[in-house]
Amino acid sequence: MLDSNLEALINLFAKLPSLGPRSAKRLVLHLLKNKDNMLKPLIHSLGEVEASVRQCEVCGNLTTSNQCRICSDVTRQSNILCIVEDISDLWAVERGKIFKGVYHILGGTLSVTDGIGPEELNLANLVKRIVDDAVTEVILATNATVEGQTTAYYIAELLKDFPEVKISRLAHGIPMGSELDYLDEGTLDIAFKTRKDL
Amino acid sequence: MLDSNLEALINLFAKLPSLGPRSAKRLVLHLLKNKDNMLKPLIHSLGEVEASVRQCEVCGNLTTSNQCRICSDVTRQSNILCIVEDISDLWAVERGKIFKGVYHILGGTLSVTDGIGPEELNLANLVKRIVDDAVTEVILATNATVEGQTTAYYIAELLKDFPEVKISRLAHGIPMGSELDYLDEGTLDIAFKTRKDL
Repeated sequence: MLDSNLEALINLFAKLPSLGPRSAKRLVLHLLKNKDNMLKPLIHSLGEVEASVRQCEVCGNLTTSNQCRICSDVTRQSNILCIVEDISDLWAVERGKIFKGVYHILGGTLSVTDGIGPEELNLANLVKRIVDDAVTEVILATNATVEGQTTAYYIAELLKDFPEVKISRLAHGIPMGSELDYLDEGTLDIAFKTRKDL
Repeated sequence: MLDSNLEALINLFAKLPSLGPRSAKRLVLHLLKNKDNMLKPLIHSLGEVEASVRQCEVCGNLTTSNQCRICSDVTRQSNILCIVEDISDLWAVERGKIFKGVYHILGGTLSVTDGIGPEELNLANLVKRIVDDAVTEVILATNATVEGQTTAYYIAELLKDFPEVKISRLAHGIPMGSELDYLDEGTLDIAFKTRKDL
């Protein structure tokens, strides 16, 4: 029913996150109906990004220069490091516009099942940054998953060599605006265990 | 936080159907993490499609030749025309693998509010096809919306000049596998009014 190159394109789109075979078809059809104001700009923009975007040599964020916008921003506190698993986590924290320090992207978590050890993560560079940038605080912002927590503990152990560096991790508990009835037991458990005096 | 060309790409993706700002970010990140096996093939495939895909000169379907696969398939009955609004409707009917005739794509529906009259639709070519291909049956498969129904009636009127051509439209009623409780009143109404004797 479809020409092979059209089918190939739909199959490529269908493999992307948040798209499936049907939405990929709809998307490709939309692109073809709007050749001049959607398809051509998209091809151009993808080409530009492909040619120019690389990893920040300091933190691992995406950038078109050697250093990303955050690392090269002199108004940010380079002595406070927020350690995240992935670039998407950095984006999530930045959305909040609360954190004024800089980031360090691990590029994953320790995982026995996936065979990811400390060597596979961006850890050697972390130690170097702590020394070079005279870091005073490290905030562990890995995900609240088993792998994320394991990785956080591993890094906390690793940083015991630097007793002058304050190490913290993001608080766990009940998300703002949520109802107890809808929370999982793990969240309720930690919310009770780490309850605060008023 | 993001470089401008990365932001431009995310904004382009966010405009596409079934994507929003968040899923567009996730998608772009996925592409950049898989430069060689996702981003580059996607750029290549989009370029190929952009350069080669056009409208079938007979029915309006997408194709890389003058005629689409359906119109050039000699095993299909070119004397039975199924009239649909859009290419996505053709794809939907083809998914069912029931219809063995050929299609005619209107490219929209009559709409007073959007200022779309008969001249804007692929209607002149329809009359020509009916004569040239000795069409014996026209199946009106426009959507069950006000515009779709209006367009179907308009075409039925238009084809009164060809009394030898049988005109039908798709049946309306209760979708297979659905429960009465979940159906809208319009569907129930038509299901009662067009009920069949057993």
